[in-house]
Amino acid sequence: MTTMANDVTKTSTTTVATAAVWSGVDEGFSVDPQPLPELRVGEVLVAIELATICGSDLHTIAGDRPTPLPTVLGHEAVGHVVAIGGDALGPDGRALAVGDRVTWTIGTSCGTCRRCRRGIPQKCTTLRKYGHEAMDEHWKLNGGFASHCHLISGTGLVPVPDDLPAAIAAPANCATATVTCAARRVELDAGDVVVVLGCGMLGLTAVAYAKDRGVETVIAVDIDPARRALALEFGATFAVAPEDLAATAKEHGADVVFELSGNSRAVQSAFDIVDMGGRIALVGSVSPAPEISFEPSGYVKNLTTVVGSHNYRIDDLVEAIDFLRRTPAQQLFVDLIPDAFDLADIDDAVAFARTGAAPRIAVRPN
Amino acid sequence: MTTMANDVTKTSTTTVATAAVWSGVDEGFSVDPQPLPELRVGEVLVAIELATICGSDLHTIAGDRPTPLPTVLGHEAVGHVVAIGGDALGPDGRALAVGDRVTWTIGTSCGTCRRCRRGIPQKCTTLRKYGHEAMDEHWKLNGGFASHCHLISGTGLVPVPDDLPAAIAAPANCATATVTCAARRVELDAGDVVVVLGCGMLGLTAVAYAKDRGVETVIAVDIDPARRALALEFGATFAVAPEDLAATAKEHGADVVFELSGNSRAVQSAFDIVDMGGRIALVGSVSPAPEISFEPSGYVKNLTTVVGSHNYRIDDLVEAIDFLRRTPAQQLFVDLIPDAFDLADIDDAVAFARTGAAPRIAVRPN
Repeated sequence: MTTMANDVTKTSTTTVATAAVWSGVDEGFSVDPQPLPELRVGEVLVAIELATICGSDLHTIAGDRPTPLPTVLGHEAVGHVVAIGGDALGPDGRALAVGDRVTWTIGTSCGTCRRCRRGIPQKCTTLRKYGHEAMDEHWKLNGGFASHCHLISGTGLVPVPDDLPAAIAAPANCATATVTCAARRVELDAGDVVVVLGCGMLGLTAVAYAKDRGVETVIAVDIDPARRALALEFGATFAVAPEDLAATAKEHGADVVFELSGNSRAVQSAFDIVDMGGRIALVGSVSPAPEISFEPSGYVKNLTTVVGSHNYRIDDLVEAIDFLRRTPAQQLFVDLIPDAFDLADIDDAVAFARTGAAPRIAVRPN
Repeated sequence: MTTMANDVTKTSTTTVATAAVWSGVDEGFSVDPQPLPELRVGEVLVAIELATICGSDLHTIAGDRPTPLPTVLGHEAVGHVVAIGGDALGPDGRALAVGDRVTWTIGTSCGTCRRCRRGIPQKCTTLRKYGHEAMDEHWKLNGGFASHCHLISGTGLVPVPDDLPAAIAAPANCATATVTCAARRVELDAGDVVVVLGCGMLGLTAVAYAKDRGVETVIAVDIDPARRALALEFGATFAVAPEDLAATAKEHGADVVFELSGNSRAVQSAFDIVDMGGRIALVGSVSPAPEISFEPSGYVKNLTTVVGSHNYRIDDLVEAIDFLRRTPAQQLFVDLIPDAFDLADIDDAVAFARTGAAPRIAVRPN
């Protein structure tokens, strides 16, 4: 299935890439040259414009989450197509071309397994995720902390408008699309009173997205006063500390609760405050945590719905990019991200990201 | 708002009704004459053909569930319209007439409160439920264990075909509609592998309804071998004891789990077996029970959805009647219900119902 060189459309004359290869907690990163791949049919090579460091990258780097090694971490990225093996299609079925600015789904999907057919391609039985796999002979450039990313077959490519700032386009394929997917899964409606638990990158996105969808009342919750102040800037109607949530929800309602903090006490609080007929989107819990408990007859009689949501479908990523393009909070999102670190300074970028000073730290190849 | 006698359409010349009035655990039932009501506009008087004793009636009679007193218990019933105050409309907007065979929603709904407008009229803020309210001066005939039932404004009336046996039409407005509502709320699809926990009246209905909806594989679960045998007759692909559920679900799948037993261990098992992207309908838990617990990151990454479902909307009752009309299991449902007791023998009917010998015991006014 390897195409001949003359079947590959490309413009770049670069013959070598650079990647921050991560070899585990002890060995850390080494920024090394890597050969450009021989593209197979259905594969795309992207020159990365900007990548951002997601919380899950930090978990991996801290040793809290095992990953196959060596690997190129990073899955939040935006770039330009520099070569295409055969054809590559966008989500609307139109062919992509060299030079197009794109982002891509965090994982691949086959489109034919039972899970893909049942609308959960993010759990495809042959799923491979960017920033999560070991490098191999064919697929070395498999993450975002690199000059190029090698997009394999089954990856969903989504065009990114040229005027969308890279600092907000990069996190779209993780933070933003995770929020638009959760909103779809809980059937967020303009008439809902929305509660957002946790005002990090996902929480601020949820606040702005709820407002974008016409929601009038958004109650944002965080332990950090600075994050609560940010939530108000992003459009929250109220921003309260966790200890004030019950009273605020009692007064204003809680039809849809987005749990984005991953804190078990916050998860538990969602069950306590959700209104009759309300829906809880559990999103933030991605590492093992203390159990949650509830009394079943109260749950039944309250007509509660709890939806677990992890990653997203390509249509959620399309919606994420469109939301970022249209939201009046666009500049606020840009302002969240400090100036990018050079890829060569990946260790400094990670160290700064770990301070929590900003919800995302960006990395740019030279 | 009381209409004059000459505004009331009626045919019956009866001027007195009979009701089994329940006055609490100590005083029990007394079957007494009751005056027929003066119908207000929007009210309907129905002559009851047959009523069935629901499990929740038995809980009330046993003293496990407090209810205002005195009351006419019973909410599962079918009858014929004998008088109408003003106009009464069916679910399709057509006027009902004296002589029509009908059933009705277990509760009233105003249609204008926030809950009604948000699609959960079963939780209307001014809800009044048949078989659950104290008799008052205007509304004495407020339950099914009587010769007549006085349907107040906000009750949803649904026509019942003349050839639908009363023994299965009576439970439709509780058992059957609760199942069709839960199926709607979990978006039951023909492609789902369905697990039914508990094979009482609701469970057998869920088995037959899943088959009716085109589901190929239905795994029925009950501790009782006789009930498992019944589940197979109703169309279950497999019928297993709880201890065999995990292995069966692992082999065949578990996309949608209907929890109809109310047993906390069964509820817990639903969380353990549900497949990736699966949905659990919690329905059976209507009395306080031990808490359920789950680990949130497993829930999130499994894309689990849990939907609490209690009672139903009028469209669910329309679907319930239509299902009972079209199901090949119709005669099986009829065979579940022994010959009716006379209303005068309500104590004997209750005593027999308590033995659990049949999923429903019927009561017929003389």
